[in-house]
Amino acid sequence: MASALRVLGIDPGLTRCGVGVVDVARDRSAALVHVGVVRSVVDLPIAERLATIAAGLRQVIAAHRPDVVAVERVFAQQNRATVMGTAQASGVALLLAAEHGLAAATHTPSEVKAAITGYGSADKRQVQTMVARVLRLDVLPQPADAADALAIALCHAWRRAAPGAGAAVPGGADDLTPAQRAWAEAERAAARR
Amino acid sequence: MASALRVLGIDPGLTRCGVGVVDVARDRSAALVHVGVVRSVVDLPIAERLATIAAGLRQVIAAHRPDVVAVERVFAQQNRATVMGTAQASGVALLLAAEHGLAAATHTPSEVKAAITGYGSADKRQVQTMVARVLRLDVLPQPADAADALAIALCHAWRRAAPGAGAAVPGGADDLTPAQRAWAEAERAAARR
Repeated sequence: MASALRVLGIDPGLTRCGVGVVDVARDRSAALVHVGVVRSVVDLPIAERLATIAAGLRQVIAAHRPDVVAVERVFAQQNRATVMGTAQASGVALLLAAEHGLAAATHTPSEVKAAITGYGSADKRQVQTMVARVLRLDVLPQPADAADALAIALCHAWRRAAPGAGAAVPGGADDLTPAQRAWAEAERAAARR
Repeated sequence: MASALRVLGIDPGLTRCGVGVVDVARDRSAALVHVGVVRSVVDLPIAERLATIAAGLRQVIAAHRPDVVAVERVFAQQNRATVMGTAQASGVALLLAAEHGLAAATHTPSEVKAAITGYGSADKRQVQTMVARVLRLDVLPQPADAADALAIALCHAWRRAAPGAGAAVPGGADDLTPAQRAWAEAERAAARR
């Protein structure tokens, strides 16, 4: 898609970090570019696990050259046992985006659900079914982390493309400037092609 | 100190990330090498803040070439408003250690207090006073994040140097192998000089 925005969605995690790359056109149509999971071995030291995740994310960025990166936002209230590792992985994902000169935004799980299905309390299966339909996939992407990464990527593109998206987006005010900048830059780049 | 272990202690944070480098000899005596704080601007996007922290940590590693990195462990129960940023910064710190080929360990706040003052419920002032005394500083290091980073570095060296330190250290089992390896490597390197 010549004028599409290419978004790398990341569902951060230490054991499984979902990655999904989609091209999204101005008419909101979308095409799958890449989907997968970066894994790290549970019994390695935490620093080596984060380095494994970083290496996998760098490979995806190098192979697919996204215009922008969208990462699911982590909350302290979520699953206690793994939330710190998830937050650490999200920090690594956001760092890599910045170090590649890519705009990065975060979206909450309910923002993602609302963007994909129309309501913020949709269940995971409903989100995955809609992602598969939008991307014209015959089967639901597996594992769930990979499907979630695609949902985050679509959410990001659609929220940014929506008319009037801006300061009115709840909770997103701090992410908007770089994402809007990325969209404008991608459009200008596409116009020059 | 020819046979000293050089430890970089990091008190992770997004607004202020404390860094302290100490040389610790086998007799537990210690010397200050560097102390400071890496800051990032609050209203920048999170990815750029993490990149600022990473750049500052890389400068400290390049300038002072530590043998090992010790990072304070973050818990979900801690201060809700900032804990996610702290966890993300700790993920960046651990990643940088791994990418520089440095062993990395984490220590809980109570492990640090116990190592420095002898009891895990010491207050911050007691820890800082002991750090200043051990390092023969005329004034307490400021801000508190910088003093905490020195305490983490001393804690790491002392726990590793303690006779019989190993699986018996509470909560530290997952950190021990790389740290012990770093100590052994530093000793071997010192013997060759």
